[in-house]
Amino acid sequence: MASVEDLLRDLRHKVDRLLPHDIEVTDLEFEAHELVLTTKNPGAFAKDPNLIRQLARGLQKRIVLRPDESALLDEEQAEERIRFIVPPEAGITSFSWDRSAGEVTLEVEKPGMAIGQQGVTLNRIRAEVGWTPKVVRTPPIRSRTVLEVREFLRSVSEERREFLKRVGRRMHRSRATNEPWVRMTALGAWREVGRSCSLLQTQDSRVIIDCGVKFDEGDPATPMFYLPEAQPFSELDAIVLTHGHLDHCGLVPLLFKWGFDGPLYCTPPTRDMMALLCMDYIKVAEAQGVKKPYDAADVRHALRNTITVGWGETTDIAPDLRLTYHNAGHILGSSVTHFHVGDGRYNVAFSGDIKYERSWLFDPANNKFPRLDALICESTYGGREDFQPSRERASEQSREILQMTAKKGGKTLFPVFAVGRSQEVMLVIEELMRKGEIPQQNVYLDGMIMEATALHTAYPEYLNNQLKQQIFQEGTNPLLSPIFKRVDSWQTRQKILDDPDPCIVLATSGMLTGGPIMEYLKHWADDSRNTLCFVGFNAEGTLGRRLQRGWREVPYREGGEQKAVRVEMDIETIDGFSGHCDRRQLMNFIQNMEPRPKMVLTGHGEASKCVEFANSITHKFGIEARALQNAETVRFC
Amino acid sequence: MASVEDLLRDLRHKVDRLLPHDIEVTDLEFEAHELVLTTKNPGAFAKDPNLIRQLARGLQKRIVLRPDESALLDEEQAEERIRFIVPPEAGITSFSWDRSAGEVTLEVEKPGMAIGQQGVTLNRIRAEVGWTPKVVRTPPIRSRTVLEVREFLRSVSEERREFLKRVGRRMHRSRATNEPWVRMTALGAWREVGRSCSLLQTQDSRVIIDCGVKFDEGDPATPMFYLPEAQPFSELDAIVLTHGHLDHCGLVPLLFKWGFDGPLYCTPPTRDMMALLCMDYIKVAEAQGVKKPYDAADVRHALRNTITVGWGETTDIAPDLRLTYHNAGHILGSSVTHFHVGDGRYNVAFSGDIKYERSWLFDPANNKFPRLDALICESTYGGREDFQPSRERASEQSREILQMTAKKGGKTLFPVFAVGRSQEVMLVIEELMRKGEIPQQNVYLDGMIMEATALHTAYPEYLNNQLKQQIFQEGTNPLLSPIFKRVDSWQTRQKILDDPDPCIVLATSGMLTGGPIMEYLKHWADDSRNTLCFVGFNAEGTLGRRLQRGWREVPYREGGEQKAVRVEMDIETIDGFSGHCDRRQLMNFIQNMEPRPKMVLTGHGEASKCVEFANSITHKFGIEARALQNAETVRFC
Repeated sequence: MASVEDLLRDLRHKVDRLLPHDIEVTDLEFEAHELVLTTKNPGAFAKDPNLIRQLARGLQKRIVLRPDESALLDEEQAEERIRFIVPPEAGITSFSWDRSAGEVTLEVEKPGMAIGQQGVTLNRIRAEVGWTPKVVRTPPIRSRTVLEVREFLRSVSEERREFLKRVGRRMHRSRATNEPWVRMTALGAWREVGRSCSLLQTQDSRVIIDCGVKFDEGDPATPMFYLPEAQPFSELDAIVLTHGHLDHCGLVPLLFKWGFDGPLYCTPPTRDMMALLCMDYIKVAEAQGVKKPYDAADVRHALRNTITVGWGETTDIAPDLRLTYHNAGHILGSSVTHFHVGDGRYNVAFSGDIKYERSWLFDPANNKFPRLDALICESTYGGREDFQPSRERASEQSREILQMTAKKGGKTLFPVFAVGRSQEVMLVIEELMRKGEIPQQNVYLDGMIMEATALHTAYPEYLNNQLKQQIFQEGTNPLLSPIFKRVDSWQTRQKILDDPDPCIVLATSGMLTGGPIMEYLKHWADDSRNTLCFVGFNAEGTLGRRLQRGWREVPYREGGEQKAVRVEMDIETIDGFSGHCDRRQLMNFIQNMEPRPKMVLTGHGEASKCVEFANSITHKFGIEARALQNAETVRFC
Repeated sequence: MASVEDLLRDLRHKVDRLLPHDIEVTDLEFEAHELVLTTKNPGAFAKDPNLIRQLARGLQKRIVLRPDESALLDEEQAEERIRFIVPPEAGITSFSWDRSAGEVTLEVEKPGMAIGQQGVTLNRIRAEVGWTPKVVRTPPIRSRTVLEVREFLRSVSEERREFLKRVGRRMHRSRATNEPWVRMTALGAWREVGRSCSLLQTQDSRVIIDCGVKFDEGDPATPMFYLPEAQPFSELDAIVLTHGHLDHCGLVPLLFKWGFDGPLYCTPPTRDMMALLCMDYIKVAEAQGVKKPYDAADVRHALRNTITVGWGETTDIAPDLRLTYHNAGHILGSSVTHFHVGDGRYNVAFSGDIKYERSWLFDPANNKFPRLDALICESTYGGREDFQPSRERASEQSREILQMTAKKGGKTLFPVFAVGRSQEVMLVIEELMRKGEIPQQNVYLDGMIMEATALHTAYPEYLNNQLKQQIFQEGTNPLLSPIFKRVDSWQTRQKILDDPDPCIVLATSGMLTGGPIMEYLKHWADDSRNTLCFVGFNAEGTLGRRLQRGWREVPYREGGEQKAVRVEMDIETIDGFSGHCDRRQLMNFIQNMEPRPKMVLTGHGEASKCVEFANSITHKFGIEARALQNAETVRFC
């Protein structure tokens, strides 16, 4: 088969044949899945959008135009011109220039306004200043994560381009001539929860899907990625993430530390979430005096190598693999990850974690695909008895609990994880308060919650249709309501603790294993007017679980002494906020799939749940279903 | 954990403590699974056999004594002494001396006589000449293979000792501290027949079981041993063979060519069979002008690295693996291969090819084990309809056919493979003739059949109890009957072809795809007094299959011209000679297993047969059974 050089030479000939003679192409190079065409005449393409379409059709490649440096207006003039072209309502908050790529990134408050109908505004910019404009949203709430990630990516743009070139060349390598096959190896979170990791392999390619950590004491923390199938890391084609929870992405930087230097694919929110949580993971490890698995530099390495892919965009990620992301309904940016293998030989989707019910934040997980042969499905609540109340019921319960506490003049304390549930609870509270069903009061967000909320406001495209409607059409985002107050210092927290007035507090950690929630609990637990309201899962052995079971003491250390506070506050649990499907939703998810897969592999659940879920699928739908074990490999075709 | 050096030092201390002070130990070293103790006083051990037993118990190792060179009588004197000690009825036919190992190998006609009751004769030799005596059987029929293998192994004894040392050290390496697991990957002959290959892996070790070739046109010839689980070959712990057919051992030398340099485990007859068939495989490839997969040097490399293990001897082959061979009833030396993993954590047996019925040559396959969790079972005739007549019926049919042909004064032609069926047919014919049920006549063996027969006579321990009784107690081996004549030249064959008298011919190849059988067919096919009698499987597309189906012509080329001979001879098929279990025997094999395995994996059969067999096992015995596919991995624990 032809080498990459031959291939590029061939493409160059075709480009020269397809383009008018007055358009000068100075370079043609692969960058990841794209073919980058550098031209001295970006304006000509801006004026005739058909040119690019014809090229793409003729070359069968996704083409990206890059202006030759000679075509660029100087930056000051260009900025002036852009400010003139873009309507002021778009709200440009910053420009950043990447001269070697000829790219200018506009951070704007209303991206749609800056892009224009069918990209007309961007096109005009391109035509008039030469630069290629990129538009990103200015987070309505200042997000340190978004800021830092964007800043970092700007700082490594040159390196990144070299990296993309390398990926592109690797992606266009010669194909194997062995007998063809497609298979998957279970590396983590099979018949268990935590350390999610799978390896999709063909005769040509190897891709890791998720690479999470497991925190359960006594269990191995890392996936079995030391198995020979995954070795050497340096020769893996890609890591693909379903979402940004640590049990799915927490050890991605470790793979980079250990030699992986290829692309990491995820949605934009997942990238930021991963950065946020992995950095926090390091900090917590340092604070606890535990050996950290990797350094901040490894997280940055992962970021540098990240290629973001939005929902519905189909992207080549290896010689014979195409990736498409679909909404998974679990957390921000969480995705059902679909692979199209070898020109349609096989199609397999990894559910990641899914919620198959419209939640306050997200639409139900997608289960319609153009093609599908096998599904890898989570089984967290796949057991025969794992039924949960609906979101509807959860909201009612929230109302009842908040009203009851309000009646007593007490405070309501929600132990939450930063990402996911906390934003749902916020939306419920905001609505109740807006509709006057509970009294106006402050809602304090302590821990990483506000930062996580900022991420949600930075990527409204990933929220459900109703929220998008509210945000884009009506211009109001309930997450931005002034009732929400960030707790960002020890002093603020002390003031809240001392304030006798009713209020609502959302604080981490969700299972009462530490974090700011402990301070509130210490101060307020002995007051029977107050309520502690769990909205998530409490693992065995945590204080959260003990309190749920009737234990009525909160132990703490002060000045080297062991103390305890008696718990007099009400303790409530709302079960309907789960980000996972319950048993019924899992079965519905499978039942309503289009097309019906020929095989389902169940993982991400205790052994009994994975097995029960698989048995039910086989029994009810006649689909071959199996609960794989870690270290097993199944062949698809 | 301690290094090998530490371990040896520690053992040395123990040895010094356990042995009397007047015994001088000059060296202590691992050689494969054995601990070799070199001593200046071999006589002391010969006089007190308890010494060695105490050492073995104290050190928990299998101990081999080696005389220090200073303890050896010179070879001439030693030979004289040994000839005096060994009774002349033993029939010493040769001595060979390996000075650096202090070993003398006696080739004798009656090994039992040379060994003496409980080894008393050997012990006396040891005590009187210092040398360690080894006894091997002089093949009653001259076998080139046995001769050459023994000669070759003598020529590389020094290298071989270095190799064994290396294996020993590797076997005593430090163990992994990862989470423990045991799994198996299917590399070949899963849902197919041919290219048998499986990979047994634990957190510590990796062993390949069988490495065969597949000859079916259009199908891949080699197992999927290029999968990363099997890589790099240089770091595999061992290859373990079930038996010496090419579809199980034909690509072993290729693994050596490609970097494997570890031990190859098999029974002594399997070693010789492998050498015979692999060398023949090269010759055939050369003759057909096909690229040969490896050279004679690679076969020799495999031989040099072979460690033979007899039935029932349990042998350490990796830090956490113990191997025991049991009779499989299929061909000479064929074995059900049992692995005891990690101090009993798991026990798994690979059936290889099995016959679960007493045949003329072998006892039924063993299916009783001290422990057993999983069985990997062949499925050649595992389909619902795969029933065959019994051996009994096959013998009756043979009698009928031979009698009928004799009545007509015709010749009987058996197309056979060299190994297995041909010796069975020989035994049937010998008995019929001895009992006077068919007339006395010559039985000609053409092709590799006599060589294969010679192998059977060299290893009578691997024949069934009845034959062993005949051979050892009564001193008669029916395979040595004078009715059998070797066809060893073109002239002999021509004389037979021209001889008008009735005779019986066994010739290769079994499916009429070439070989000497074609000559007989060309000359005798047009005579209706003659009979062509198939006793084995004819693959689709072969002349054998065509004739079975009613085709009545044998095409051949002569002097560049395409000719054909009309077939007038009778064509018969005897189905009951198969070396494989039929469906009923397979089910009985499982049903009568002790203990019942918890899991059965079915392979070595067409896809439908593997699946049907697995389903029947689950349905009938309630055992989890699965038809794995190549490239899949199942985890045992």
